[in-house]
Amino acid sequence: MQGHLTDGTVEVGANARERYYDSRGYGRPRGDGVVLSRVEAAHLLYRGDLDAVDGQDFAAFLAANEEVVVDFLVYRDLRDRGFYLSPAREGWVDEPSDIDFVVHPRGDGPWDDTIEHRVSVVGERASIPLRSLGDVVLAVVDEESEITYLDTGDEPVSGSSSMAFDGATQGHLLEDRVLCWDPPSDLYEQGFYGQRMDRDDDTLQLSLLEAAYLAETGYLHVEGGAEALVDRGRTVEGERFDRRLTVYRELRERGLVPKTGFKFGADFRTYADVESVEELGHSELLIRVLPADEVLSPRDLALDVRLAHGVRKEMVYALVDGEGVQWVSVSRLTP
Amino acid sequence: MQGHLTDGTVEVGANARERYYDSRGYGRPRGDGVVLSRVEAAHLLYRGDLDAVDGQDFAAFLAANEEVVVDFLVYRDLRDRGFYLSPAREGWVDEPSDIDFVVHPRGDGPWDDTIEHRVSVVGERASIPLRSLGDVVLAVVDEESEITYLDTGDEPVSGSSSMAFDGATQGHLLEDRVLCWDPPSDLYEQGFYGQRMDRDDDTLQLSLLEAAYLAETGYLHVEGGAEALVDRGRTVEGERFDRRLTVYRELRERGLVPKTGFKFGADFRTYADVESVEELGHSELLIRVLPADEVLSPRDLALDVRLAHGVRKEMVYALVDGEGVQWVSVSRLTP
Repeated sequence: MQGHLTDGTVEVGANARERYYDSRGYGRPRGDGVVLSRVEAAHLLYRGDLDAVDGQDFAAFLAANEEVVVDFLVYRDLRDRGFYLSPAREGWVDEPSDIDFVVHPRGDGPWDDTIEHRVSVVGERASIPLRSLGDVVLAVVDEESEITYLDTGDEPVSGSSSMAFDGATQGHLLEDRVLCWDPPSDLYEQGFYGQRMDRDDDTLQLSLLEAAYLAETGYLHVEGGAEALVDRGRTVEGERFDRRLTVYRELRERGLVPKTGFKFGADFRTYADVESVEELGHSELLIRVLPADEVLSPRDLALDVRLAHGVRKEMVYALVDGEGVQWVSVSRLTP
Repeated sequence: MQGHLTDGTVEVGANARERYYDSRGYGRPRGDGVVLSRVEAAHLLYRGDLDAVDGQDFAAFLAANEEVVVDFLVYRDLRDRGFYLSPAREGWVDEPSDIDFVVHPRGDGPWDDTIEHRVSVVGERASIPLRSLGDVVLAVVDEESEITYLDTGDEPVSGSSSMAFDGATQGHLLEDRVLCWDPPSDLYEQGFYGQRMDRDDDTLQLSLLEAAYLAETGYLHVEGGAEALVDRGRTVEGERFDRRLTVYRELRERGLVPKTGFKFGADFRTYADVESVEELGHSELLIRVLPADEVLSPRDLALDVRLAHGVRKEMVYALVDGEGVQWVSVSRLTP
């Protein structure tokens, strides 16, 4: 059969509807014929199921429609994995502007109106505004045409850790940390605040974030109060300190214990259900704190997600806008 | 015993030489006494081996010498691991300006003039000029006072991969990749250039870097030649493309096969000894290409190194200055 490109879609007439749409979920029916997106037409040409579009074979059609090459690679990969897809065109799927394809659940087709994934195709050189993520699977095509799928979510984080102190303790600000020479043992053992200088020594080293939060909540006294700690934080890391303190506070209030994620290149690792440091489990999340309008490259995302996966944690971006925090999780997906 | 702080060092008189220097490698002798760096004095105070410095106990001495707190944490950690250290002071060690301590081999002391590691202490908020690395161990103290040691090296990379072609093949530039419809099978099977579109299809997808290198060396013909490919590369990623092509070329010429490191968040992963793709082993290095004057945070380094370690590869930075490439490897160290 032959197709004809007009207004950005490929029309195939005669009995194409049954052959392409009804039996294999390509395009949308128009009378007895079918309307195909250019990506679908390329795939049919590639498989030899369509002879030509306006006389062009697969190679010629791709050369004349360069801008669909990357989408084609993803479309083909998902087809090979046994899915039917609907290209995101107005009238074909809901909210088509955010995505490139809707992937239907295996066994379903475009006539079922069901959704397994909403997929956005990006080249590895794209720029990704993090706050646009949450209800989309990114299909990243790298420079060697390999595809990495990244699933994104927007559930707020939560946990069940909490602790109540009696009274307060005294701390001393030394450069960019706070030393407590004689803290109540619960502060570390139950609240998991700070790090002991030695195993057999009560002296506790608090980070500026931990100290600022404890000072705000009244459990720590330092010269100059919480303000002096926040000032020092801003001196050593600028506005980033405010963003990180906002997220630290939010995490503690949501029942998670944040500890440094430095060894993982993140801001925090978090423990959702701490009852005591003695019985500490595995930390579940890696949190990276960023301004709400941050834009990352797919490579940055791939690095974070790969590392988190390797240490059996989930990667979560905490996007800070003033006092508000938006949570965006990103994980590898094998469709 | 009591010490006295003068000109940035702590003097201890009487028979301090035997007690501190001869038997335990602290400081440098001066007559019967000893001169200690402030970090050494802090450590002796901490251990209770020195009573006071000008009447100050450990807490008071640290408070009065805030700027040695971070060095003290590292000094203490390395002492706990069984090493003697020489603080990097003029006349105490060679080239003291680049580092904070010389760590002597276990069993050796400052009188042996031997070196196990040259250590530079950095806080997690420091900025690290990559080209300054190569002959130093970074001891990174994070905000919670945990220490991560990163060893650095400056050996150029090398391998034994090579291939010779007969003739050349034709490619077609489509957006940011090149398709070869009918390439010689050696190009992929022996040279590991490109990625096949399908397992049972010869069609080869080359990245812009692979294509530009093959066009330069005469093995690939495309419309406009290598120049058209480099132009396209600059269009899609700016100067970064030139840096990456410089490193790609250098890697191929040094006998390594570079493939995309995208899944690892790097520019390349490399194979040192490729005879055929069929018998491909594990890739050994992850390469990140950066301008020669690039400055990274310890967190960026920690992220790269942790990831590389997790996938059993070594992290190497390729620092590009014009046509020159400086190689800096970074790996985790447990002293």
